[in-house]
Amino acid sequence: MIVVMSPQARQESIEKVKERLEAAGLGVHISTGENRTIIGVLGDKRKVNIQAIEVMDDVEKIVHIEAPFKLANKQFHPEPTVITVGDIQIGGEQLVVMAGPCSVESREQLLETAMIVKAGGAQILRGGAFKPRSSPYSFQGMGEEGLKILAEAREKTGLKIVSEVMDPENLPLLLEYVDILQIGARNMQNFHLLKAVGRTDKPVLLKRGLAATIEEWLMAAEYILNEGNHQVILCERGIRTFETYTRNTLDLSAVPVIKHLSHLPIIVDPSHGTGKWRYVLPMARAAVAAGADGLIVEVHPQPEKALSDGPQSLNPDAYRQMMDEVRNMAAVMGRVI
Amino acid sequence: MIVVMSPQARQESIEKVKERLEAAGLGVHISTGENRTIIGVLGDKRKVNIQAIEVMDDVEKIVHIEAPFKLANKQFHPEPTVITVGDIQIGGEQLVVMAGPCSVESREQLLETAMIVKAGGAQILRGGAFKPRSSPYSFQGMGEEGLKILAEAREKTGLKIVSEVMDPENLPLLLEYVDILQIGARNMQNFHLLKAVGRTDKPVLLKRGLAATIEEWLMAAEYILNEGNHQVILCERGIRTFETYTRNTLDLSAVPVIKHLSHLPIIVDPSHGTGKWRYVLPMARAAVAAGADGLIVEVHPQPEKALSDGPQSLNPDAYRQMMDEVRNMAAVMGRVI
Amino acid sequence: MIVVMSPQARQESIEKVKERLEAAGLGVHISTGENRTIIGVLGDKRKVNIQAIEVMDDVEKIVHIEAPFKLANKQFHPEPTVITVGDIQIGGEQLVVMAGPCSVESREQLLETAMIVKAGGAQILRGGAFKPRSSPYSFQGMGEEGLKILAEAREKTGLKIVSEVMDPENLPLLLEYVDILQIGARNMQNFHLLKAVGRTDKPVLLKRGLAATIEEWLMAAEYILNEGNHQVILCERGIRTFETYTRNTLDLSAVPVIKHLSHLPIIVDPSHGTGKWRYVLPMARAAVAAGADGLIVEVHPQPEKALSDGPQSLNPDAYRQMMDEVRNMAAVMGRVI
Amino acid sequence: MIVVMSPQARQESIEKVKERLEAAGLGVHISTGENRTIIGVLGDKRKVNIQAIEVMDDVEKIVHIEAPFKLANKQFHPEPTVITVGDIQIGGEQLVVMAGPCSVESREQLLETAMIVKAGGAQILRGGAFKPRSSPYSFQGMGEEGLKILAEAREKTGLKIVSEVMDPENLPLLLEYVDILQIGARNMQNFHLLKAVGRTDKPVLLKRGLAATIEEWLMAAEYILNEGNHQVILCERGIRTFETYTRNTLDLSAVPVIKHLSHLPIIVDPSHGTGKWRYVLPMARAAVAAGADGLIVEVHPQPEKALSDGPQSLNPDAYRQMMDEVRNMAAVMGRVI
Repeated sequence: MIVVMSPQARQESIEKVKERLEAAGLGVHISTGENRTIIGVLGDKRKVNIQAIEVMDDVEKIVHIEAPFKLANKQFHPEPTVITVGDIQIGGEQLVVMAGPCSVESREQLLETAMIVKAGGAQILRGGAFKPRSSPYSFQGMGEEGLKILAEAREKTGLKIVSEVMDPENLPLLLEYVDILQIGARNMQNFHLLKAVGRTDKPVLLKRGLAATIEEWLMAAEYILNEGNHQVILCERGIRTFETYTRNTLDLSAVPVIKHLSHLPIIVDPSHGTGKWRYVLPMARAAVAAGADGLIVEVHPQPEKALSDGPQSLNPDAYRQMMDEVRNMAAVMGRVI
Repeated sequence: MIVVMSPQARQESIEKVKERLEAAGLGVHISTGENRTIIGVLGDKRKVNIQAIEVMDDVEKIVHIEAPFKLANKQFHPEPTVITVGDIQIGGEQLVVMAGPCSVESREQLLETAMIVKAGGAQILRGGAFKPRSSPYSFQGMGEEGLKILAEAREKTGLKIVSEVMDPENLPLLLEYVDILQIGARNMQNFHLLKAVGRTDKPVLLKRGLAATIEEWLMAAEYILNEGNHQVILCERGIRTFETYTRNTLDLSAVPVIKHLSHLPIIVDPSHGTGKWRYVLPMARAAVAAGADGLIVEVHPQPEKALSDGPQSLNPDAYRQMMDEVRNMAAVMGRVI
Repeated sequence: MIVVMSPQARQESIEKVKERLEAAGLGVHISTGENRTIIGVLGDKRKVNIQAIEVMDDVEKIVHIEAPFKLANKQFHPEPTVITVGDIQIGGEQLVVMAGPCSVESREQLLETAMIVKAGGAQILRGGAFKPRSSPYSFQGMGEEGLKILAEAREKTGLKIVSEVMDPENLPLLLEYVDILQIGARNMQNFHLLKAVGRTDKPVLLKRGLAATIEEWLMAAEYILNEGNHQVILCERGIRTFETYTRNTLDLSAVPVIKHLSHLPIIVDPSHGTGKWRYVLPMARAAVAAGADGLIVEVHPQPEKALSDGPQSLNPDAYRQMMDEVRNMAAVMGRVI
Repeated sequence: MIVVMSPQARQESIEKVKERLEAAGLGVHISTGENRTIIGVLGDKRKVNIQAIEVMDDVEKIVHIEAPFKLANKQFHPEPTVITVGDIQIGGEQLVVMAGPCSVESREQLLETAMIVKAGGAQILRGGAFKPRSSPYSFQGMGEEGLKILAEAREKTGLKIVSEVMDPENLPLLLEYVDILQIGARNMQNFHLLKAVGRTDKPVLLKRGLAATIEEWLMAAEYILNEGNHQVILCERGIRTFETYTRNTLDLSAVPVIKHLSHLPIIVDPSHGTGKWRYVLPMARAAVAAGADGLIVEVHPQPEKALSDGPQSLNPDAYRQMMDEVRNMAAVMGRVI
């Protein structure tokens, strides 16, 4: 951390900053240039309230050198984290595909989708039982009934299941049924929820918030890791920009950036990332080529009857084609599905 | 709503769309141009699953004509909503100022701030007891102890109090103490929480999400209104853009836009909007000039000791100056504090 | 400037960076912490190619401490720049209003508008003769004929005139006619054009680019100042964000930020900033309250017949009302029109 | 096009809109719903000034159905455009790679780079002779001398050359030397320049502006096409968002979107898109997987000595590795380099 003093800073102000930092047990290194003084700070900055330093007289700004995330940081944990779900490994050589409908709508719909998903070669079934919807007038999910149907599909197909938890209150219920807990983009900074899932021993799929920087996203992961749950899978699903031809802007460069900064696995959601099924195939291929550890995509037996996200859902044929293309792409990348 | 068919649409596809809309009890109006056919849809669109129509064969896109928010819509409720908190009226002639520290840090700090806030002329005391922080290593608030201190300050000064509720679980606790429930920006689409506060009879201060469009913000209000609580105060607090000199970009044009679209009152938070105390004064004046119904600002007796948000907190002198300037500005705008 | 070495940096790499900086005549200050070494750099950084340092072995990143703009920087020029155009002063006590149609469309239209503008109290007439339009099928301006009409209006009303220069080639022509040269948002980084207007002695109105940071904007001003023309007026006109209810997001906090960073005057364009005439009035008031030195607004005698930007143009009544409100606002701010 | 009347629209206002549209030779289709009337408009909308309609009494908004770009639109030109440069074909089966330094810095540097580029298998050499730089204190390019060196490199290697034209004034000079004219991101809406290159018979590489929507980008292409030059190659190079770990956010979904909307070829620039050489490899692979027709990347023999863009330049080894990986990726995609 560096404290940048303003050009007119009085010696007295510089001394006060120095004293305060030293009182917190931190080392201090003062450089005086022509225009101004800068103060290098050594030691564990968690000991000091940084925002308070920033307000001291004649301080212009604080510059952070170290990343604020520790547990998610590759620097202190160079080996990639591999998460095991049954006989599936996420973050290793295997390329993992999670597929299924946006929402569980009925037993028939889900079981039919599960068969298609299984036959196509994906390893994990997705399906929402509790749905965050921007309108109170939209379908809000089947609740526990949906979870039961998911569990039945698991039994029938052997697929593992992932579903979203929206609230700490629902967590015990979700824990009974799912193999992976999903935290949705809108809840990426719901800190109560992050802490709650951090106290479980289930893998967590943490979606990037719509306007979250990569640093904020890793800090959200840090909340979960800090509670003792080290099984966090990151999921890039598009960020909000000015472009409107796509629902969001899928930030695929987040994949190599995360691989550079963190040891956590990262998968990509091209369905939410683009919002239109016809763009899911090319972006699924691109995600694999960029180095993602997996994909999560929406599949529906009849997208034109889906209660939510029909426009971005693959029909069975498109899903099969995607799996074929992704398998070829995985091979070039030295990965297996 | 208009269904735009693709240029090559077959007659058969047009017929199917028509049938499906009519089956849902909607009126249909077909216009055939040189390039394509468009289908106007009349009636209550909540009867039909619009995304499913969008996926039908040869449909290119859906264009929405009516705003999706009904209860928040000025069109169906032309009179402005005025919310009463004790003898304060929010959304009427009065200009309301909410001021106080980011977090309740101690009894001394809060009572001292409350005295300053009261003396300066604000009507409502703000202070966080439960704090959403992007880092798990930052101060997370005093919890119920903080609420008790806020209640004591209310008793001593007569100021009403507003504080953030982060979770449905904490809601009963907050309800015991506060006069206005705040929903923070990060929780703007925490739909469980929105529904929960919608079932109370307390006024709700709903902050705009960092990346929320005005429409999504009004839809979040709709969740609260739809549960029966009509006392929603909107709060513009800056959106995320590429600019970094300010913490966020305060979108003051949201004030006249909301006044045009909705009957709900709107206030502005220049502290979070700019992130630096020196910009709070000009932006507070600008907010009043733009037509806001009030302000919420951070004040701390010693910002250089604040446990959170020091850089954007006004010290007592700056707060008093702001109140003087805002009073003058209110007078030109025909409002009183 | 600070060179941040990566945590694993070898001593050899540190030495090489040190040598290269010293070879460029710069002072070097090395701080060694637990995790890494950082190198403070003293002296005129323009002597060294900074991007090349960033690529040296074991360098993680470069952190800039000093702002890259020198001539536009308030630090080295604390007195505000006041620009004189006839008997008008921009950047001083006076609040300057520039008003007129988006485009000069005909002699009648412009002269009529000029009379209205003059009567309402604005000091400067705006009007485009060369128009940048996003579609090649839209009206592209009257060219020199438009400039002649503007000059005639100046003669008839005494108003000074401002008009956009789109190309260095047209500059001599513009110089014959206008009092202030406007650089449009799309040309903010047209560096040839910036240098060309920098070699004239006419005041330049420099609009902020749609996606320009405040720093890039000041660097664009630096191009003009660096050629010897010190009469630069900045103009905030909205930035591009995800919000669509307004054409752009008017970033009014740019006003106090510019006042803090630079000595150059700044005015605000609420017409382009919002894109809808009904939001021009409140945002014009807010701009004045935020501390802007002036406004530029679009006025048309019959907006429903305007060849461009009708939706954001004030009709004569709305313009007069705006001037009344702005005059009141100016009075509170201690300014005169 | 649809004219949406406001809910309270008077019959008289509806009539006036109808008359005006019919007077312009357009067909009109009126639908009256419960809440409001909407007017469908048939025929060539270029005949009417749409913004002027939007300002008519009781008009709420205009909704566009047809895309505003005609010549770039796949709907009217379903066959992909293939552009021939010598024996290279851009937009067909071939995957085209353009590589070279950001700037031509010296004869030695460029010839050395050209040899590396050629040996690695790219077909086209890039290199800036005129450089748009955000700071007036940065290296601005070698000018004509740089072009001569590029031409010499072409002679020696057989590589075709692409270089940026910044100004209509320089165009004749560029035309003497280059095989492809590049329009930089900052000039995407420099309409004089677009028209000028549209009057030549050279292929044009049109980079997407930093804050340009896909529609605006295609409208910029339309300016070139409309002057008679049909050889436009689009280039996605990253858009500006809030994320700062990468220089820009590379919007790879633009590739399939452009393929859906337009017949023009599209290539990707992962160097500017990410700003860091280590992310260029994965994003180059991803671009090919997304369906791009080619790549443009920065290569420098010694990035740590580059006068510009060193941090995002590949050194010779990294370039060779990229070419190997891209070749494998091309094979899976059924393309050849």
